Amino acid sequence: MVNRIVGVDLGGTQMRVALMDTDFQLLARANEPTLAHQGADSIIPRLLDLIASVVDTSDQPVDAISVVSPGPVDPVAGVVTYAPNLPGWRDLPLGAIVNQRFPHIPTFLANDANAAALAEVYIGAAVGHRHAVYITVSTGIGGGIIIDGKLFTGAMGLAGEIGHMLVTIDDGSVSSLEEEAAGPALARYAARRIRSGAQSRITEMVNGNLEAITGRIVGDAAAAGDALALETATRAGRIIGYAITSLMHLLNPTIFVIGGGVTNLGELLFEPMRIASRERALASKYYEASDIVRAKLGDDVGLIGAAALVLQELQPGRED
Amino acid sequence: MVNRIVGVDLGGTQMRVALMDTDFQLLARANEPTLAHQGADSIIPRLLDLIASVVDTSDQPVDAISVVSPGPVDPVAGVVTYAPNLPGWRDLPLGAIVNQRFPHIPTFLANDANAAALAEVYIGAAVGHRHAVYITVSTGIGGGIIIDGKLFTGAMGLAGEIGHMLVTIDDGSVSSLEEEAAGPALARYAARRIRSGAQSRITEMVNGNLEAITGRIVGDAAAAGDALALETATRAGRIIGYAITSLMHLLNPTIFVIGGGVTNLGELLFEPMRIASRERALASKYYEASDIVRAKLGDDVGLIGAAALVLQELQPGRED
Repeated sequence: MVNRIVGVDLGGTQMRVALMDTDFQLLARANEPTLAHQGADSIIPRLLDLIASVVDTSDQPVDAISVVSPGPVDPVAGVVTYAPNLPGWRDLPLGAIVNQRFPHIPTFLANDANAAALAEVYIGAAVGHRHAVYITVSTGIGGGIIIDGKLFTGAMGLAGEIGHMLVTIDDGSVSSLEEEAAGPALARYAARRIRSGAQSRITEMVNGNLEAITGRIVGDAAAAGDALALETATRAGRIIGYAITSLMHLLNPTIFVIGGGVTNLGELLFEPMRIASRERALASKYYEASDIVRAKLGDDVGLIGAAALVLQELQPGRED
Repeated sequence: MVNRIVGVDLGGTQMRVALMDTDFQLLARANEPTLAHQGADSIIPRLLDLIASVVDTSDQPVDAISVVSPGPVDPVAGVVTYAPNLPGWRDLPLGAIVNQRFPHIPTFLANDANAAALAEVYIGAAVGHRHAVYITVSTGIGGGIIIDGKLFTGAMGLAGEIGHMLVTIDDGSVSSLEEEAAGPALARYAARRIRSGAQSRITEMVNGNLEAITGRIVGDAAAAGDALALETATRAGRIIGYAITSLMHLLNPTIFVIGGGVTNLGELLFEPMRIASRERALASKYYEASDIVRAKLGDDVGLIGAAALVLQELQPGRED
């Protein structure tokens, strides 16, 4: 019987740790900046201390520590294969490292967006759905695939990397969903258009320094009605929408849940996304029974997902 | 206990029907041309008679009739949603129609490439694989996804339409894997290059009538060493390879099985396919444990798959 779970969300910016009960109530938490540039040798001891500080607050024995991390993760071996926001992290045996510090507590490791997908199914926007796809659009694009109520991770746990679908295959160039529609892609597209003469309030917002454009700045300009920013948001929405078409044809889920900072664009992103997702659908059945909705859980989605993974592993059947 | 299955492969060119035992031995068979242009009103009575002629040969009661058809099929409702090679077939309740003629025999309906995927796992190139992806490249591109040893069909049975992944999303154009890499795409590409001045023996092979170019002609020219034909094959291989990258990232299978007439190009197609599939992989783990092989079963793959579907439904666990 599981009662207490420590969830760990190792992000490129923040390390978040929380003690949770099996209703996903956060009983205690501790955050600190990751300082990713300092590398694994600095991050890991700080992370372990942060986990210890939360484990120590527990009123009951901690039944599991569940770590989620960006990039492809090998959950069976407990290895972070490659973490895009953590320079130098390749084939890092994080599961074993955590387990060495906390040898009496079972340790789990998973991809952060995979975990977030499960969180949205357990208590978020996809409650009740047996087949769901989660996409998070922020600095990168991650994803998670739910099949028959469970997180699908493929043969080696590496599945669900939706941001790394190749969406543009031209003779000269090959480009991924992430490269075309994540926050930095919005910034690059707006900068390129401004350089080729487009007028935009974005230019003022960055005092003429086009290198300083971010996805957030494009979002603010779009909210203020700037035409180029709206064009940029529409483009990203359409590209994500076409990727959703591919995923409808491949996986035929009943819901797409879209999260991440770029979704702060709201309908400016979702409307072109929904329109594009239908434009090339093979048959209306694909989209008629497949909603595209905004994620419900906020910054704690990774922590909640980490706990949900433990429940899925140790208390199967609960999700039904 | 299942002993005798009648498989039905309703193709755009041929209707194939066979009586099989549970080892997929073909005990009797009957084929006839579909004559797709005559429409469903002509095809269906002929199909039902063909099935009856095979049912009548059985030495034992027939336990199931299993029909496979191109395009997205709703296997639960027994409805052919849309069959690209059968003009006018939309939302056709083929399961109910077959069942009306053979009311005492349970009827199954599935997508042909989905069934072929299962056939390759049961007795073809993917034996022993729990996570596999099958792609058939011929007049169109179809596919099937095997997850945990079973055919994955999604929430409504419409999953696995790999040919309808959108692989080129440009501002001006959106194009699917099928539109870029199926047989007719090879013909279109070669014709376009010849029209813009490329020299090729293909021009002679069609007596200057570029409209007469087919995928098979491109294949014959490639086998004879024609440079344009080789370029065309390489291009198709690369595009399929990039789609495989997307599928590795999404589904992380241990094998890709590629079938269909276009694979008669052999290594002229497979070599660029394998190279491209690795070029943009997030990590070597994705392809190191994921072979790309040629399908093993021939023209009867649909019939065998139809029977395998029945065994999966009525004798689960057998595939383990």
